[in-house]
Amino acid sequence: MSRFLSPLLDRLTPYVPGEQPRDRRYVKLNTNESPFPPAPGVLEAVDRAALEGLNRYPDPAAAALEAALAARFGLRPAQALATNGSDEALAFCMRAFCDASRPPCFADVTYGFYAVLACAQRLEPVVRPLDERFRVRVEDYLDAPGPVFLANPNAPSGLFLPLSDVERIVRANPDLPVIVDEAYVDFGGQSAAGLIDRYANLLVVQTFSKSRNLAGVRIGFALGQEEILSDLRACKNAFNPYSLDSLALRIGEAAVRDEAYLRRCTEEIVRTREAFLQALRSRGFTGNDSAANFVFVRHPRLSGRAYYEALREKGVLVRYFEGPRTRDFVRITVGTPEDMRALLAATDAIEEENG
Amino acid sequence: MSRFLSPLLDRLTPYVPGEQPRDRRYVKLNTNESPFPPAPGVLEAVDRAALEGLNRYPDPAAAALEAALAARFGLRPAQALATNGSDEALAFCMRAFCDASRPPCFADVTYGFYAVLACAQRLEPVVRPLDERFRVRVEDYLDAPGPVFLANPNAPSGLFLPLSDVERIVRANPDLPVIVDEAYVDFGGQSAAGLIDRYANLLVVQTFSKSRNLAGVRIGFALGQEEILSDLRACKNAFNPYSLDSLALRIGEAAVRDEAYLRRCTEEIVRTREAFLQALRSRGFTGNDSAANFVFVRHPRLSGRAYYEALREKGVLVRYFEGPRTRDFVRITVGTPEDMRALLAATDAIEEENG
Repeated sequence: MSRFLSPLLDRLTPYVPGEQPRDRRYVKLNTNESPFPPAPGVLEAVDRAALEGLNRYPDPAAAALEAALAARFGLRPAQALATNGSDEALAFCMRAFCDASRPPCFADVTYGFYAVLACAQRLEPVVRPLDERFRVRVEDYLDAPGPVFLANPNAPSGLFLPLSDVERIVRANPDLPVIVDEAYVDFGGQSAAGLIDRYANLLVVQTFSKSRNLAGVRIGFALGQEEILSDLRACKNAFNPYSLDSLALRIGEAAVRDEAYLRRCTEEIVRTREAFLQALRSRGFTGNDSAANFVFVRHPRLSGRAYYEALREKGVLVRYFEGPRTRDFVRITVGTPEDMRALLAATDAIEEENG
Repeated sequence: MSRFLSPLLDRLTPYVPGEQPRDRRYVKLNTNESPFPPAPGVLEAVDRAALEGLNRYPDPAAAALEAALAARFGLRPAQALATNGSDEALAFCMRAFCDASRPPCFADVTYGFYAVLACAQRLEPVVRPLDERFRVRVEDYLDAPGPVFLANPNAPSGLFLPLSDVERIVRANPDLPVIVDEAYVDFGGQSAAGLIDRYANLLVVQTFSKSRNLAGVRIGFALGQEEILSDLRACKNAFNPYSLDSLALRIGEAAVRDEAYLRRCTEEIVRTREAFLQALRSRGFTGNDSAANFVFVRHPRLSGRAYYEALREKGVLVRYFEGPRTRDFVRITVGTPEDMRALLAATDAIEEENG
């Protein structure tokens, strides 16, 4: 922090992304990436002409991508806003709708970026604890003090809150935006996008980084009624009008048009996840079922950190989170069946060495 | 604006990018893009493997690109920060260093995005009028009330403020950041980057959108001493940790390594600009010399808007800015010699029709 920094930012807490070490090759199960390449259409979308045309600005309105997104969800183009990753959509939501009189409201154990964004705006979030099994308590959100940020499925729990409960929260807070962050919805949840026409305060945020196999490009989007979305659009135009580049626009459009590939990839992940969870449980691990592309589990004996470190030693990366409620757990991304076999073999080896 | 929008954002004024019409093919001289394709290395950098690997997150530290940038300017890697276009770097500067007690300070006629960013933070900028020929009056900045945003060369004037004057401003304000926005510096200016080791309060911001022929990707960067740059880095990690995607990182690195291509392209633009300015002056146009890839000129008879509209009618796009000081002028991007001939032919035809 330099002496030039405004005191308004004295509480800036940078988000800590999962590590991307370069010292050796790891089985990388720590950042919830897809193990599959992007849809075949993506590889065709970036041709020589696209690269040669990079001297020209992208369409700042992202019209073609937003039309494709809207069509995919049965909405009108003005009901979709493309952003630089879903993080940018979430940042615009925090900027547009939250202030000291309407602080953001979210769970104690959820996507860590919400708290980072709140801090950056010097806002004191209203934190609602999950129950003892990491489930959202719907009653906690029926009279919210400010905009609700609801990750569904939640991370790192992997639990999906039924759409009827989401709707109860949206309906109970007609004067507050409810932002449903569906980064993992394609792995076992159900999108709230179908509710948009009924609720002026509902925003649905999704990303291309997980089920669309495109963490390396930065594409996210928000869906909502025209009026509430126009606030986010105004934010985009005031902070970074061209935040999606020409290649991302082409790639995003190609990806969203290939629903069949998305379904094939997510079905494969779900199959792998279920077999993997069973294998963990047979080794004494505990943890909830998951509706996401990761599992959140507890080693029978080791703390989250100890298990993480032992796995890292053996070339397998997972993620753990300090904090009283999470430190006994690790979050493991579901990769290919081979990746999961490597993790299980490493786990068995750790067991033997410490046996 | 929806009823959900925070009153804190009631002054949000979206930036209006230059139009990107799709109704017909235009000779596009309105957004200061380069007419040349990206460096050959860029076309090689995005290969099939790069596309297939897009399922993985980019390096959030942008280490390779920042190392290449630092090397190019004779700095250490921690003295370079890569951003999503220079707009993102400017937005971070406004967020990190400006508040009501230290409002941003900039010229009345300059890059319009500074005012947009100030508005978004509800800040009242301190505006210093340029002199009657659009020149920066150095004395106006020797006791600045807050961080200085200095576009150099300035836009839309195209005028370059000598480095000795920039240094006077930086030296006179040791307790305030001075942000030198060098978007157009490669077309006839001289970068202030060489001053960084001497001034803790100096930040130099550049973009890949102009002289590096990459407006379609979104790459910008800030250079400065480690300490002041660490504030911008913290902003990036609090707002959008992965704002540069994997392809942009590869493309940026390839582009920055090919200085010879940049020099060839910018020399060609300078040659075209000088011949074009002469042709305009021989037709009675007035306006300053330019150190940028555009000229800011006044038609002998038509207002900026009337000339813009007449050109648009004939398939040539330029830009004009409403406002008492600028409305008699148009800003014309310097493209290829053929582009400029097309503009001159259209201008002559307008003359004849209105004879």
